[in-house]
Amino acid sequence: MHKESEKVKVFALGGVDEIGKNMYIVEDNNNIFILDAGLMLPENEMFGVDAVIPDITYLIENQERIKAIFLSHGHVDHIGALAYVLKKINVPVYGTKLTLGLAEELLKSSHPVKHYDFRILDSSKSINIEGTKFTFFKVNHSIPDAIGIAIHTSQGIIVYTGDFKFDQTPINNEHTEVSKIIKIEEQGVLCLLSDSMNAESPGTTPSEATVGQQLLEVISNAKGRVITATFAMNIHRVQQIIEAAEKVNRKVAVAGPPLLKNIEIASRLGHLRISKDSLVTLNEAKKYPDEQLLILTTGDQGEPLAALYKMATRTHKQIKIEKNDTVVIATSATIGNEKALSRTVDAIYRAGAQAVSERDGVHVPGHASQEELKLMINLLKPTYFIPVHGEYRMQKAHSDLAVECGIPLKNTFIVEKGEIIEFINGVAKKGGRVPSGHVLIDGLGVGDVGNIVLRDRRLLSQDGILIVVVTLDRKNHKIISGPEIISRGFVYVRESEELLQEANENVTEVLNKCLDQKINEWNSLKTVIRDSLSGLLYEKTKRRPMIMPIIMEI
Amino acid sequence: MHKESEKVKVFALGGVDEIGKNMYIVEDNNNIFILDAGLMLPENEMFGVDAVIPDITYLIENQERIKAIFLSHGHVDHIGALAYVLKKINVPVYGTKLTLGLAEELLKSSHPVKHYDFRILDSSKSINIEGTKFTFFKVNHSIPDAIGIAIHTSQGIIVYTGDFKFDQTPINNEHTEVSKIIKIEEQGVLCLLSDSMNAESPGTTPSEATVGQQLLEVISNAKGRVITATFAMNIHRVQQIIEAAEKVNRKVAVAGPPLLKNIEIASRLGHLRISKDSLVTLNEAKKYPDEQLLILTTGDQGEPLAALYKMATRTHKQIKIEKNDTVVIATSATIGNEKALSRTVDAIYRAGAQAVSERDGVHVPGHASQEELKLMINLLKPTYFIPVHGEYRMQKAHSDLAVECGIPLKNTFIVEKGEIIEFINGVAKKGGRVPSGHVLIDGLGVGDVGNIVLRDRRLLSQDGILIVVVTLDRKNHKIISGPEIISRGFVYVRESEELLQEANENVTEVLNKCLDQKINEWNSLKTVIRDSLSGLLYEKTKRRPMIMPIIMEI
Repeated sequence: MHKESEKVKVFALGGVDEIGKNMYIVEDNNNIFILDAGLMLPENEMFGVDAVIPDITYLIENQERIKAIFLSHGHVDHIGALAYVLKKINVPVYGTKLTLGLAEELLKSSHPVKHYDFRILDSSKSINIEGTKFTFFKVNHSIPDAIGIAIHTSQGIIVYTGDFKFDQTPINNEHTEVSKIIKIEEQGVLCLLSDSMNAESPGTTPSEATVGQQLLEVISNAKGRVITATFAMNIHRVQQIIEAAEKVNRKVAVAGPPLLKNIEIASRLGHLRISKDSLVTLNEAKKYPDEQLLILTTGDQGEPLAALYKMATRTHKQIKIEKNDTVVIATSATIGNEKALSRTVDAIYRAGAQAVSERDGVHVPGHASQEELKLMINLLKPTYFIPVHGEYRMQKAHSDLAVECGIPLKNTFIVEKGEIIEFINGVAKKGGRVPSGHVLIDGLGVGDVGNIVLRDRRLLSQDGILIVVVTLDRKNHKIISGPEIISRGFVYVRESEELLQEANENVTEVLNKCLDQKINEWNSLKTVIRDSLSGLLYEKTKRRPMIMPIIMEI
Repeated sequence: MHKESEKVKVFALGGVDEIGKNMYIVEDNNNIFILDAGLMLPENEMFGVDAVIPDITYLIENQERIKAIFLSHGHVDHIGALAYVLKKINVPVYGTKLTLGLAEELLKSSHPVKHYDFRILDSSKSINIEGTKFTFFKVNHSIPDAIGIAIHTSQGIIVYTGDFKFDQTPINNEHTEVSKIIKIEEQGVLCLLSDSMNAESPGTTPSEATVGQQLLEVISNAKGRVITATFAMNIHRVQQIIEAAEKVNRKVAVAGPPLLKNIEIASRLGHLRISKDSLVTLNEAKKYPDEQLLILTTGDQGEPLAALYKMATRTHKQIKIEKNDTVVIATSATIGNEKALSRTVDAIYRAGAQAVSERDGVHVPGHASQEELKLMINLLKPTYFIPVHGEYRMQKAHSDLAVECGIPLKNTFIVEKGEIIEFINGVAKKGGRVPSGHVLIDGLGVGDVGNIVLRDRRLLSQDGILIVVVTLDRKNHKIISGPEIISRGFVYVRESEELLQEANENVTEVLNKCLDQKINEWNSLKTVIRDSLSGLLYEKTKRRPMIMPIIMEI
């Protein structure tokens, strides 16, 4: 048997096989290191849920062994769960300046964290934590200051790319550091964990610079106002929009406080250049003619679209899209929001404005395509390969690419979250699991909304609820008050008086029958009411509302 | 002033600016003719709704003037509302054999219609109804027996294309009848209503035959079973799958009674060829080795995907996807179901099977692309142009194409549903509106689910419901029983006893305060309870469940 301290373990608590919610764990010398702490937006069937984070039971149970959290970059799918993690675990957080700047903002949000230990990384220097060395390399992504992380474990080097692409003409002139990647390879790479988000796209991802040219063309050809929408954290995109506006002498008005805050942080840290003259408030903007204005609006994930939709349907408080406006949607249609995108574009056209979107070249992905993914594999020549970040079929595609590049199939692992890959004497094998899963955030609740609550919300959303209240005199087996029947989300009450009256008579009848038989067991009474009513309602409406009998007694 | 009888009117009750739910009206000599009667699937936010049909108030109010319904082809987005219309209006229905065969099936469904007057069309012959002549031309679409309709009105000819494309190698050898279209043009076309679904796609739509070649290649290369999914009503696709199976000597097992019924109807009417030897039941299928089997599974819209997902996650009753299966998804990812598609493909890969989908060439659209749309416009040379069927931006794109082809911009109308285009002395203008909108079908209810019910379902789906019941003695101003607090979809009750206890005390306290002040007005009591509780719950949970105070009195 090998001692635990002789093994190196790698596993995911989130991020494998899920968009967003990235969190990977590397254990070396019995010490635990956390790579990223992201959140995921809820899916459609997660009714009322605000966000989803990884299950960190394992981390809480082993917190004395956790030595650090490393953040690869400042997107919410990599840093959004930090507040929840730090509330449970007190551990230093390492990241570059911009990443920690943005993370700090997030810690002030709805689940605020007061005490934290942030340590700014210089990506050119290495860090040593209890015998494990960490080195870093800069990568291109849709946000500046993004890094890949090399963990020099007792079994060899494990490389985590974070989100990356190889942009040959990056707008901040900082390239993915190939020379550093080569240096890591020269020491021998045990295992590569690489970004799979775009593994189904052939070729190479276009440079962010192509977006800049396109934006400039669109903005300089616009006759009236230009309204642009992008993700608040896509700092490169924001920079390019501002630059294009400045080139054609348009003032920039920013809508929404979160974006202003991000612009402020990124400017302060030198990652965003904007001249003071260019920025105006929405109020000041009114003084300028349409053709001298650009309005910048953003939000997280679905929000930019939601804001544009409101502007186009004239339900937005501050901005209404008018005829002659040019609306630039500089974000992607991620899986699941195509409908929202198409509805928004429709509303913009209907308002008489022009819509410009991804297909017009004003968006490119921040993730490497197949040729770049193969380049990363060939540069690092890892013994083992684990695709991370992306849905199952993307990871499958990425794993196929690794095999194409000469990694033996048996050395590639597509892992489920919680599944441990153990390295012993340089050899990898699957080695058990740790607890893993979704933890749902709803309001202040973390994890208190589970399957039962979600099932009820789903049922309620389908056919509503019907509440039957009756007050009984237990001793004399008599109805004293009621039955009262109240429904919500079932039928339009004013037009269904007859049906509800019939339901009332139905309940009275079955209840009196039970009471005549001296049935005193409240639960049986409830079951009888529920069965009888649900039969009646289904027959009359073919609907199955949730039926809630409530018996009060005196 | 012109008499009503001297005008020709054209408008849409559905289908303009909506995918599905097609229904267009032409009025000539004061007679009303209905073109198609389709339904639409509910959108995400239409909780619990089964289907959406057009508002036919106008038709009901003017039913004595309605002379006929014409169906262009047998897809649900063109015939799905027929049952609801025929229940209100007794009027002859014209269509080709297959279209009426499929429509007849639909009339047996959840809202059955017993008496109807179906009249089979021979598309080579014209029909005369009270002075209005109708002629027809065959068109290619993803279902056989589809037609375009020319209405020879007192103001000129109005052409409704139905859904169409120009397939140069149609699998049933029946081409869109260009010669007939030319004959119509020779008489002069007043107005063209043309299918906009694919108006954003440049070039021409590939032939259905390309799918056949691809299917054959995939099926002949498959090592194990082949499982194919397609829409039940895509008869051409079903035909091609069957032919490919027969060519490589695979038996065909059909899963699902609706598909079997459609196959039976289409075969009987000569639109589907399948040898008796090829068909086996799912039970018989078990006797054949994997490589001699093809399983055909279908449904409407989202259903094929839902069935595949169950098969892949092993929750389907009859079929489980196994390693070595090849799963062919021969449908498109329509807007809004991309997420379902990607989840299904993921589950198939995870089950160890191979997934083949649209991007592999096993699906092509049934609608004309830009070059074909321009061809139709140029063949018919209409004076006026109205794009129909498709979202707003598709109609916008289609209208741009018409202008490119030389139709003056002022002669193209993008109309909202209900908006009337009037033709007087051969000149068109907008002429008022008729009532129009969505009618929601939920179970047996047609139109009884409206905004209030939907709003309640949405609220219930977000944070659930909290019911507070208390029995009061009105005379003595005393609580006799309760308060009882019951919640569903709000919090997990077992872990929230403390919160619910606190809520209970809160209600008791504010209620006693009111009763002490002799407040006897039930509505004020309810408001007090609701306000106090919602404040408490939001503070503690940041959630806003629906709060339902119920006061019983004795």
